[in-house]
Amino acid sequence: MRTSQYLLGTMKETPADAEVISHQLMLRAGMVRKVASGLYTWTPTGLRVLRKVEQVVREEMEKAGAIEVLMPMVQPADLWEESGRWHDYGPELLRIKDRHNRDFVLGPTHEEVISELVRKEINSYKQLPLNLFQIQTKFRDEIRPRFGVMRSREFIMKDAYSFHTTQESLEDTYKTMFDAYCNIFNRLGLDFRPVIADTGSIGGNMSHEFHVLASSGEDDIAFSDSSDYAANVELAEAVAIADEPLAATQAMEKIATPEAKTIKALVEQFDINIESTVKTLIVHAADTTAKDTKAPANAPAKLVALIIRGDHELNEIKAAKHSAVASPLVFASDEEIRAAVGAGPGSLGPVNLTMPVIIDRAVASMSDFAAGANEEGFHFFGINWNRDVALPEVADLRNVRAGDASPDGKGTLNIARGIEVGHIFQLGTKYSEAMKAGVLNEDGKNQSLIMGCYGIGVSRIVAAAIEQNNDANGIIWPTAMAPYQVCILPMNMHKSARVQEVAEKLYAELKAAGVEVLFDDRKERPGVMFADMELIGIPHTIVIGERNLDEQAVEYKNRRSGEKETLKIADVLARVQSA
Amino acid sequence: MRTSQYLLGTMKETPADAEVISHQLMLRAGMVRKVASGLYTWTPTGLRVLRKVEQVVREEMEKAGAIEVLMPMVQPADLWEESGRWHDYGPELLRIKDRHNRDFVLGPTHEEVISELVRKEINSYKQLPLNLFQIQTKFRDEIRPRFGVMRSREFIMKDAYSFHTTQESLEDTYKTMFDAYCNIFNRLGLDFRPVIADTGSIGGNMSHEFHVLASSGEDDIAFSDSSDYAANVELAEAVAIADEPLAATQAMEKIATPEAKTIKALVEQFDINIESTVKTLIVHAADTTAKDTKAPANAPAKLVALIIRGDHELNEIKAAKHSAVASPLVFASDEEIRAAVGAGPGSLGPVNLTMPVIIDRAVASMSDFAAGANEEGFHFFGINWNRDVALPEVADLRNVRAGDASPDGKGTLNIARGIEVGHIFQLGTKYSEAMKAGVLNEDGKNQSLIMGCYGIGVSRIVAAAIEQNNDANGIIWPTAMAPYQVCILPMNMHKSARVQEVAEKLYAELKAAGVEVLFDDRKERPGVMFADMELIGIPHTIVIGERNLDEQAVEYKNRRSGEKETLKIADVLARVQSA
Repeated sequence: MRTSQYLLGTMKETPADAEVISHQLMLRAGMVRKVASGLYTWTPTGLRVLRKVEQVVREEMEKAGAIEVLMPMVQPADLWEESGRWHDYGPELLRIKDRHNRDFVLGPTHEEVISELVRKEINSYKQLPLNLFQIQTKFRDEIRPRFGVMRSREFIMKDAYSFHTTQESLEDTYKTMFDAYCNIFNRLGLDFRPVIADTGSIGGNMSHEFHVLASSGEDDIAFSDSSDYAANVELAEAVAIADEPLAATQAMEKIATPEAKTIKALVEQFDINIESTVKTLIVHAADTTAKDTKAPANAPAKLVALIIRGDHELNEIKAAKHSAVASPLVFASDEEIRAAVGAGPGSLGPVNLTMPVIIDRAVASMSDFAAGANEEGFHFFGINWNRDVALPEVADLRNVRAGDASPDGKGTLNIARGIEVGHIFQLGTKYSEAMKAGVLNEDGKNQSLIMGCYGIGVSRIVAAAIEQNNDANGIIWPTAMAPYQVCILPMNMHKSARVQEVAEKLYAELKAAGVEVLFDDRKERPGVMFADMELIGIPHTIVIGERNLDEQAVEYKNRRSGEKETLKIADVLARVQSA
Repeated sequence: MRTSQYLLGTMKETPADAEVISHQLMLRAGMVRKVASGLYTWTPTGLRVLRKVEQVVREEMEKAGAIEVLMPMVQPADLWEESGRWHDYGPELLRIKDRHNRDFVLGPTHEEVISELVRKEINSYKQLPLNLFQIQTKFRDEIRPRFGVMRSREFIMKDAYSFHTTQESLEDTYKTMFDAYCNIFNRLGLDFRPVIADTGSIGGNMSHEFHVLASSGEDDIAFSDSSDYAANVELAEAVAIADEPLAATQAMEKIATPEAKTIKALVEQFDINIESTVKTLIVHAADTTAKDTKAPANAPAKLVALIIRGDHELNEIKAAKHSAVASPLVFASDEEIRAAVGAGPGSLGPVNLTMPVIIDRAVASMSDFAAGANEEGFHFFGINWNRDVALPEVADLRNVRAGDASPDGKGTLNIARGIEVGHIFQLGTKYSEAMKAGVLNEDGKNQSLIMGCYGIGVSRIVAAAIEQNNDANGIIWPTAMAPYQVCILPMNMHKSARVQEVAEKLYAELKAAGVEVLFDDRKERPGVMFADMELIGIPHTIVIGERNLDEQAVEYKNRRSGEKETLKIADVLARVQSA
């Protein structure tokens, strides 16, 4: 492609409204343009990258036995009524009416449509397993679209849905998809982690997210330095720090602490280690008796105390999963706490607390620790379990931290930020039961289909790759995603017939060999040409100038390593094909 | 692909609600499934064909210098307000509101979005011409979607938009696109005609439609048997049948015709040729004086008489384009006719008619003809121009018919039905003026961009190709569109290890050579396998059976020609690659 006949669209200035580096660079490199909030046009350079990602995804899905289909973007509401999501899905589901006033949605996902297809097409276990995928435009009416195509409203997704009659078959396909996803992200040249994930509202049993590691990520990922273990911090297990508490060395003592309303104040005023303090958090209990007894409507909420070490963070997802705790988690108000305990949130602790208590594993191995006395302005110091207060129920309640032992027993955990670019789920029968999608099984009986679903954010991958691959000069594309492999920069071509001749000849030669070349034939200063090509992130730059031509040579520059070398013109093709 | 691991979805029965053959065959061959009115899922076989069409379109567009982009399907209403189409476009434009109650449309076309892009990106004539295209899902809220994907609501279109500062440059690109379209339809193996078209409401100067010829088409196409001339019948010029009328041989005579209210009755009762009669049609005149005079609001409409030969059809589009005639065409009511003429529609004619008269070219060369006498129940016979009544204004007012002379002077016209699959327009400045899309021209002055637009109905091509290529057994794919090139049908494979071994080996060999093969490894009777593969329309069938294996041979069948031959296994690859 000649830049003179191309829509390059590069910009020097960083657009004011782009917060993250990928959004800035996609605008500056002429990859996308905003049409409205969360709606973008992919301009030529961006679309080339997008199509490369699509093609890698398509090839690996097909290798893994999945079959491509294309479902409509506009979906009839009645299917969503059947699944229950017409009512359950929030305002991110864009509901529309056609000219006959019938209800439709603009599809954010396609479980309903694929279940409708499969329940009509598949009758017997003999036609299974089946794994169908599509690469398609989706719409999610984000309340606050941001970060460019990273969180846009219209986006391109690969979604796949598998159908089975046995859990083993689902697990087989799940494993195949797990491997296919690893192949995809490896081929794309991305540093990624498959992580155990919370299934959230989609339901089902098992789920992995695939994260591209990048500091701008919205998720915290914990991963072992010595094994494959990786999990979203929301879900990563925090193992016990020690099997047993150390032996007690202090007597328990009640001390007036009128100025110590926080852990920080307590630690500073009394010069103790924060690791010797605990935080007591009061939450609503699971209302397990509500269906059996007729409690008055205005009866006070039942409460539970959760205790974690002073320097740890409560993991609200883990807490809400505990059977004694209300889900979703509800923190007790100050009034509720004072009514139940007789003291405020700054003075709580396990000793003399008259409600169920659950302590974190790390708290169970503490000794000689400090906690509120459940009496306004007083703390106990030198508390020891069993001696001063019975050991309560122990559970995993906290977020893991860097340096924690990996829960698989191998190595310690690191924490990094990740951008979610893929998600695979074992859905089970959630949709097939609601939508009566069944088949005859080997026993000749009708059975609900067991489903898996597998998503990849195709357009988001483009942004995530840039977050991970950039420098001060612009994007540094992994080879598989680069919009062009090579750019040819002729220096002052319009003044030198020799430069022009060599440039045209090399351009023709590389194109004939199937290399994707951007030939910068604009009448621009060398500085502008270099800056544009570095910004766009083309892996190989060939500079053609008068001073090397006597030796039949050109200058080569590698975008990633920055290395330069002088190459014979005859060696250029081999050089750019070698990496 | 093995059929056992595929979603074949073939059906024996013709679905009751499918009217046209392409819709029936697409359902029966497992190519599409209906999700809701005008909304379809492309199942695997259909999607493979769709992608082949897409790829041919993409390649030829790129060869022709167009650059691919991808615009959002959801478009902000404000751009449509700017162009005026928010109000002008009918209910086929689906208007939607997002969660913040802002107005958007689901794009049926992208003139607004591309104009917005280009007015921001392009500043100078030096960056032009530019031709941008996309292949994308579109939505048009048809009041009555029908014929499957032929007239669906969601469909896939290739739309391209070119930008220029001179009409010559537009015409260059228009010509390039014309040629690219011919290349596309030729490569796809379709019998098509580029036809001069009416631009309808899109406006602009020059326009061609590309029609695939098929009896189920919705348009009538007139084309020369001896040249490239082709035009939509709406627009095809009807040339004069003779330069001069024959000399008069009869005297004009007024005859009572109380029973002859129609041409047919007149011809039968008086035993004359229909070619010696004329029809007089009264329409509203163009209201050219309305702006100048203050005519009373209830003043009678001014009228014009249009006269065509008794056996010809009025071409309403041509008539409405005449400067003396109201556009759109409005036929005068019986009351209006009686008030103006004093006789009803069955008794009209040119003699003694007190209103402007326009006659068709064919009428101008008539002699000794019959027409109403403008007196209830009377006709004149033996009318001759100039002798009996002054020759009125002559214009082209009728539809051409098969056998008419081609307007380019070469050969005679045929008429065939066509399915419109492409349309190219010279748009001019309609959008760029409304949306203030201008650039600096060579004189340093701001100038509105001159635009062209070029559409191809990618999904419609699939249906149109089937309309043109089918027989009683199913689809007969042109090679370039076939979902698979070859199918392997092993006879009773599950009972013969030798058949299975040869089939597996041949499958592996063809796949390795890059041939797209469908391997029917189902436990089905041979008759079912044959019927399915003929229905799907795969060009080459290889039948592997015990009886040929001693000779290391298989049976080959060509889907289009129906020819069968016995082939050595070693020759199969060469045979299927040869055509």
